[in-house]
Amino acid sequence: MAGTRERIMDATYEALCEHGYASLTMQDIADGCDCSKSNLHYHFDTKEELLVELLAHLLDRFETRVSDAASDDPRDQLVDLVDLFLFGDDRDLEEHRAFHTALLELRAQAPHSDAFREQLTENDARVHAAVTAVIERGIDGGRFAAVDASRTAAHLLAAVQGARIRWVTLGDDAAPRTVREALVDDVIDGRLTA
Amino acid sequence: MAGTRERIMDATYEALCEHGYASLTMQDIADGCDCSKSNLHYHFDTKEELLVELLAHLLDRFETRVSDAASDDPRDQLVDLVDLFLFGDDRDLEEHRAFHTALLELRAQAPHSDAFREQLTENDARVHAAVTAVIERGIDGGRFAAVDASRTAAHLLAAVQGARIRWVTLGDDAAPRTVREALVDDVIDGRLTA
Repeated sequence: MAGTRERIMDATYEALCEHGYASLTMQDIADGCDCSKSNLHYHFDTKEELLVELLAHLLDRFETRVSDAASDDPRDQLVDLVDLFLFGDDRDLEEHRAFHTALLELRAQAPHSDAFREQLTENDARVHAAVTAVIERGIDGGRFAAVDASRTAAHLLAAVQGARIRWVTLGDDAAPRTVREALVDDVIDGRLTA
Repeated sequence: MAGTRERIMDATYEALCEHGYASLTMQDIADGCDCSKSNLHYHFDTKEELLVELLAHLLDRFETRVSDAASDDPRDQLVDLVDLFLFGDDRDLEEHRAFHTALLELRAQAPHSDAFREQLTENDARVHAAVTAVIERGIDGGRFAAVDASRTAAHLLAAVQGARIRWVTLGDDAAPRTVREALVDDVIDGRLTA
């Protein structure tokens, strides 16, 4: 059962990257996980429900990744998170772009969809909490100056989001790199790291 | 002739705020400027053309506003710009939100529309140039530390963009205020102002 769900989530992610949000169909997803459309409907009523589940699934994966962080140093963990948000995981950059292009379409639907808005709010809140926790650990351990951790996390996440949107909508490849350098030099190493 | 164009632009802006991008029609715009649909079509072939012209028109207005800045102090000018981007001009906040909700829909179309992508690239480049110029003036006059002005402008604009998107998509009213405080305290007064 868990295996089926995992396969459906992988197929949803891949179909979303390939087709974008607007033209994605349940059939595209069924094709990708070798299950019938009726079997897929047994698990999920609508495309919207599937995408909400995908957002929850990606959030779980993100939190697992954060708790398995390679480094113990809060400064390095924070830089790793900025890189993860801007450049993705071990996936290739084109897939990261395709996913965030589709995610922006989905985000633009949030004012009209309670289900998307609630799940995106949950995702953003927990990502914000994870970044805040890293900054707080840095402050408690004397690695970081005593900043407002929650506000600094909001600042980092807003800048990452803005840079990613320039990249996916205008094809500006330099934006994520420029903003990454600014955040590392001016916020993480400039303001936070004493 | 200039009067007609100005009236069409005002009507386009208002119709876009009221109807959003997807459901906006040429008829909505014609209704708002008391001109016939055929007269509107005489000036603009398509809704897309009208919206590209609106983006160019808003850019001109922005540049006029920057050149008429109330303060001579680059620090205050920069704070004013951040406030303008986040909270709008003398318009009310709900109109600012409606405009940026529609603008995000339009931005999400940019990967599929050369005309939108080119005009948005032009707008972003000139807004970035205006912010960079204020920072450079601050550096030249000894008001700011010798930072990378272009990179700092990209950082400020990305954070503003990210905060605005949280606000319009998730209704998070706190995001623009939190990011505004972080940018003023940590970047403008923290890093820039010596």
